[in-house]
Amino acid sequence: MPKKVDHDERRQSISDVVADIVFESGVEALTIRDIAQRVGCSPSVISHYFNSKLDMLIFTHRQVRGRAEKGLQRAIDNALSASDGFERLLPVDEPRWRDWYTWFAFWGVGPDQETMNEERIAASSDATNLFIQLVEADQRRGRINPTLSPIEVALETQTVVNGIATLVAQSPSEWPAERQIAHFRKMFARIVI
Amino acid sequence: MPKKVDHDERRQSISDVVADIVFESGVEALTIRDIAQRVGCSPSVISHYFNSKLDMLIFTHRQVRGRAEKGLQRAIDNALSASDGFERLLPVDEPRWRDWYTWFAFWGVGPDQETMNEERIAASSDATNLFIQLVEADQRRGRINPTLSPIEVALETQTVVNGIATLVAQSPSEWPAERQIAHFRKMFARIVI
Repeated sequence: MPKKVDHDERRQSISDVVADIVFESGVEALTIRDIAQRVGCSPSVISHYFNSKLDMLIFTHRQVRGRAEKGLQRAIDNALSASDGFERLLPVDEPRWRDWYTWFAFWGVGPDQETMNEERIAASSDATNLFIQLVEADQRRGRINPTLSPIEVALETQTVVNGIATLVAQSPSEWPAERQIAHFRKMFARIVI
Repeated sequence: MPKKVDHDERRQSISDVVADIVFESGVEALTIRDIAQRVGCSPSVISHYFNSKLDMLIFTHRQVRGRAEKGLQRAIDNALSASDGFERLLPVDEPRWRDWYTWFAFWGVGPDQETMNEERIAASSDATNLFIQLVEADQRRGRINPTLSPIEVALETQTVVNGIATLVAQSPSEWPAERQIAHFRKMFARIVI
């Protein structure tokens, strides 16, 4: 049993280093040697935990989106409004900004990588499902028009949240937190009219 | 003079190979050795044309967005409606899909890369300016409410176009061209109400 824990912890710490390197220098700067150096082990140890760089990126992507999904789940559990729940995803501070960098890096990997495609599709549909739950809860509370299709509202909101993140990624200094939130609220208000 | 042409042509052909590799395998698979092999020269020749991988990515990004900007400029020159102009950016076919992969890969490069930031900011503001021109032309023609702020309409439309591309990048098979266009039109109609 302790062995399994060690294994998972080690994978987690490797994936933290992968996310750091992607954030600092970009995915094109990722080398097994650098990762090993930062983790404090030899490159051969790294290959014991992951088969390839792609494997590492997939695991890292899963960890990063897991955190975001937990945030959405907490918003649902705490009966936050849909709008407040979605706003938690915006890249308004460094931890969330880092998450978005991992996602962009991941989306930028070509479409021919089969294993990556599975993770990308799973990520997108898991996010849509959580978005739908937030919308439906607000519809039950009478905050969102109950005749709207929850799936449509969820997809349009996902479009807006992701779109805002792309603008922030390009010009972070022009998109402080307040501007992101104001832009989101304005667009969201129109979606749920 | 011919020397300059050769130089530019060679940089262009290297950048085409860079875009190919990013599309096929992702930016993390980019190595000078692979690029040299595909171009048909030695790695040292590559370093004669570009100082670093980052340099290559920036040049490639500039080429790719230059094509997209020319498309928008043609839409303006041909007096296309704003909506038709924006739709040309959606990843509805392979050439445009490839462009989006280059952009995501580029956005996924960390924020600490100064030269990259300059290109990212320039790209975003050049795109916004073209979007504004399309909106203003439609306002003059009475197709878009002239009391709306062209900048706001441009930024919201940019949010939607980029957001749709992120959804397509994650689940291409779920987003055929017709669905992308219908989703865009629905969201755009609300922006210009």
